[in-house]
Amino acid sequence: MPSRFPSKMLEEAVNEFASLPGIGRKTAFRLVMHLLRRDSGEVRRFGETITRLREDVCYCSICHGISDTPVCEICSDQSRDRSVICVVENVQDVMAVENTRQFRGLYHVLGGIISPVDGIGPSDLTITKLEEKVREGTIKEIILALSTTMEGDTTNFYIFKRLSGYDLRVTTLARGVAIGDILEYTDEITLGQSILNRRPFSLQSDRS
Amino acid sequence: MPSRFPSKMLEEAVNEFASLPGIGRKTAFRLVMHLLRRDSGEVRRFGETITRLREDVCYCSICHGISDTPVCEICSDQSRDRSVICVVENVQDVMAVENTRQFRGLYHVLGGIISPVDGIGPSDLTITKLEEKVREGTIKEIILALSTTMEGDTTNFYIFKRLSGYDLRVTTLARGVAIGDILEYTDEITLGQSILNRRPFSLQSDRS
Repeated sequence: MPSRFPSKMLEEAVNEFASLPGIGRKTAFRLVMHLLRRDSGEVRRFGETITRLREDVCYCSICHGISDTPVCEICSDQSRDRSVICVVENVQDVMAVENTRQFRGLYHVLGGIISPVDGIGPSDLTITKLEEKVREGTIKEIILALSTTMEGDTTNFYIFKRLSGYDLRVTTLARGVAIGDILEYTDEITLGQSILNRRPFSLQSDRS
Repeated sequence: MPSRFPSKMLEEAVNEFASLPGIGRKTAFRLVMHLLRRDSGEVRRFGETITRLREDVCYCSICHGISDTPVCEICSDQSRDRSVICVVENVQDVMAVENTRQFRGLYHVLGGIISPVDGIGPSDLTITKLEEKVREGTIKEIILALSTTMEGDTTNFYIFKRLSGYDLRVTTLARGVAIGDILEYTDEITLGQSILNRRPFSLQSDRS
């Protein structure tokens, strides 16, 4: 990649893009040259959207997910079941669960997962806020919907311990063979768990 | 990719990133989440750099390359040889040639290459401006440094024809086996050309 730029502004723009994860200097240069060919109004909107996002972003005071308003759409939807809370790592996971259209309760976004390697402990997450909600006594079930990694399991276990004194069900997502998976290539732990947790066969399709 | 966003601002930012070439919606989402974790001042600078680049960018009135000033650094450098002009497609190519430190003349940026498929004809490029420079009579040599593609060859040929009435040398980059290339894997056209254009062996290294 040539090191000397004919324009300081060009160089700065390339540096900014290259500072994003997964974008190298060649790609950054290509993106900047693309923006230069685009309509000036479009590029201004691009720049302003980014600036505005970071400055005006707010987090829902109830579920702690990203929101445009102090209380997000889901938390302010009175038709949802307020006695079930699905605990997720981040807002992407809220969107993933929402997309299934199988859940009508509320969410609680932890803002991360316990990971000693990355220096993230329980106090960096919104676990205390979750306990406060539980203490109010109206919640009947907490669904732990974290990734099935070691960090996810650790976080699940920590939350389970914290909530063990309260009168409520703590559940976790079913583990098993994913729809469309070929048995031969399924890892042995998943397959083992799915045998231990086998269930009565039903004629109703799993895919509905 | 989940389709329903919890925040309009988030959705807009993802859409903006996803409109860039080679960036899909998943990557766009990842970049936006990264920006949300970054310092607010840094993100503002990012947004402003992009907006400013497109609005304040200017093109050198002599070589037509991207520049911060009406005449770029290279064109205003009085120590450079003003009788030799290297014709390139775009500013990346100016940087590539500059990086070799083998050229001390001036540049002329075409702003593209003749490509009927993309609807780019000679009138979309700065070829007339090049002819005007040549007409002044102080230029002794034009080096055609375009890509060795069909479009590059077409453009070379068109410029060569346009300049054929003037008293000057028109040269092109040497074609041949690249330094470090393994002969077995060199394409037959390049290899054939490099045999036809063979030159006396010299003990001086090619790599200097």
